[in-house]
Amino acid sequence: MTHAGLREDELVTALRGIVEGTRETRVVVGIGDDAAVWQPSRSHRSVVTSDALVEGVHFTRQTMSAYDVGWRSTVANVSDLAAMGARPVLVTIALGIGAQWNVTELLDLYRGIADAAKTYGLAVAGGDLTRAPALIVAMTAIGEVRPSHVTLRSGGRSGDVIASTGDFGASRAGLDVARGAIALDPPMAEAATCAHRRPRARVAQGQWLAASAHVHAMIDCSDGLSTDLARLCESSGVGAVVEHVPVAPAACAAAAAIGEPAHAYALAGGEEYELIVAIDAHAFAYLAGRYRTRFGDELRAIGTLRREPGLVAGDGETPLGRTGWELRLGAG
Amino acid sequence: MTHAGLREDELVTALRGIVEGTRETRVVVGIGDDAAVWQPSRSHRSVVTSDALVEGVHFTRQTMSAYDVGWRSTVANVSDLAAMGARPVLVTIALGIGAQWNVTELLDLYRGIADAAKTYGLAVAGGDLTRAPALIVAMTAIGEVRPSHVTLRSGGRSGDVIASTGDFGASRAGLDVARGAIALDPPMAEAATCAHRRPRARVAQGQWLAASAHVHAMIDCSDGLSTDLARLCESSGVGAVVEHVPVAPAACAAAAAIGEPAHAYALAGGEEYELIVAIDAHAFAYLAGRYRTRFGDELRAIGTLRREPGLVAGDGETPLGRTGWELRLGAG
Repeated sequence: MTHAGLREDELVTALRGIVEGTRETRVVVGIGDDAAVWQPSRSHRSVVTSDALVEGVHFTRQTMSAYDVGWRSTVANVSDLAAMGARPVLVTIALGIGAQWNVTELLDLYRGIADAAKTYGLAVAGGDLTRAPALIVAMTAIGEVRPSHVTLRSGGRSGDVIASTGDFGASRAGLDVARGAIALDPPMAEAATCAHRRPRARVAQGQWLAASAHVHAMIDCSDGLSTDLARLCESSGVGAVVEHVPVAPAACAAAAAIGEPAHAYALAGGEEYELIVAIDAHAFAYLAGRYRTRFGDELRAIGTLRREPGLVAGDGETPLGRTGWELRLGAG
Repeated sequence: MTHAGLREDELVTALRGIVEGTRETRVVVGIGDDAAVWQPSRSHRSVVTSDALVEGVHFTRQTMSAYDVGWRSTVANVSDLAAMGARPVLVTIALGIGAQWNVTELLDLYRGIADAAKTYGLAVAGGDLTRAPALIVAMTAIGEVRPSHVTLRSGGRSGDVIASTGDFGASRAGLDVARGAIALDPPMAEAATCAHRRPRARVAQGQWLAASAHVHAMIDCSDGLSTDLARLCESSGVGAVVEHVPVAPAACAAAAAIGEPAHAYALAGGEEYELIVAIDAHAFAYLAGRYRTRFGDELRAIGTLRREPGLVAGDGETPLGRTGWELRLGAG
């Protein structure tokens, strides 16, 4: 086996092969979904997910404050719990402290973490502090979910409606503004920056959707709509026709500013933490109505799952690439 | 409040103050012990701990192979579970990949993780991969423990015998050998290097000790005997007289090579992952006998807890400093 130019998902598969021999009978979902699931007692399921934010990779001092980094780390982890239908319980933090960061900033970082934790009702329960070559916030979030509500990436079926809890591309627009790559009108720039620095996790929505038997699969969108929808499809053994990309207004403006089609800009976004769900087609209208009543917001229909693998545009033919964030590694 | 020259424990206290408002009724032990504890159901306790190994801080390519890094990361986390009396269930891994590291090495790293996981009976259940400025292995381990067996740092009482599950200083000697700072005879160098690269976690011992009502407090020794014993004492509101430091043979040889007293060398060590326990004095001989029968090894008596705060030598007067590994941060 050669390892030239491994894509992230291929690396995950190789790593999974190595750790396959490690087992614990209570672990019911292992590597490959938004979070792992185990069974602390017969009638309970616990969910755990880890996610790291690295200075210079996910943020710079120019694009985010220490508070923002703390907020977004927490949201990124909580969002993975939301995508399993879980209620957050606690987070632990392994903090790597770059030489540039002082105590005042670390306290700010923790204020961001604490505020997000209060927003989503979870406790900050411990962790580890160490020196590091840059600021690294590696967080682990734990939640709980009823056994019957666990919702995986892999349950999507041909014919299901693909829907999302929000629009895409605003966080990418915020990053482009923060980097100085584009200039937007002040209110639009503000909306974009806010989406990038203070994203929300769809926790209540995730629990509500997971409680419905009509919701077959769920994933959160952290690496971009095209990439995360492709992951849901691959896990479910299906493909998807994308008929409508819900583009955030700030993303429309940003796409216009750089001369890229709005839907392409939004498909390549990432870090918006909206949920992408596969819903039984017969139940979609009913569920969307109840969702509107419950959350005062729309479930956006994006397209349909189909038997043929791969993502295609609304014409059913034009392939859509995975244009989101993905790690790629050189050969060894 | 000024933050000039904060010590690690002081920073932890400041950070704890910030996140104190985050709560979840099921979290029964939060920041400040070896691990956090929560209650997934009435009759169960889950334990969670996070620990990060950072290239250039905890290891270099010169001192450890990728396999070793994987092994030791797992052991460092499992050891925190052992110190709570918990049985390991699963780990998740947030892996930061430095530009120097290729796929072959990452697979080796995972082999080290998988072998340690198999040794301690836990599943590798997920995580996160990202680019980083150096190799960073941030791991979270989860275990379970009976409610009545949860053993904290804070239960030590004046008069308790302080004991350990092993000797100290061998890992430090191994690091000194690997760095080329000292040369030892081949068998001694081998023992030292092995202690540094492939430490063990005292999982069975931790569960056994935690099950005894005579064991009042427990901590694992990752930052050095003097530092971790001081932490147990501070948490328990007591001090300690250190009458006998159990020094590993390799540490004796290493101390002789650099002209440092053996007990001082061992007190400043770290990363040996032995458990330090506070045991009811009346029960110590009985428990040590049963321990010998069960594990074919000695519980080493180190000294006694006493009312007066601080660590002192066997004369009851000479102060012993915290000479282990501690993070120190500049002002903000």
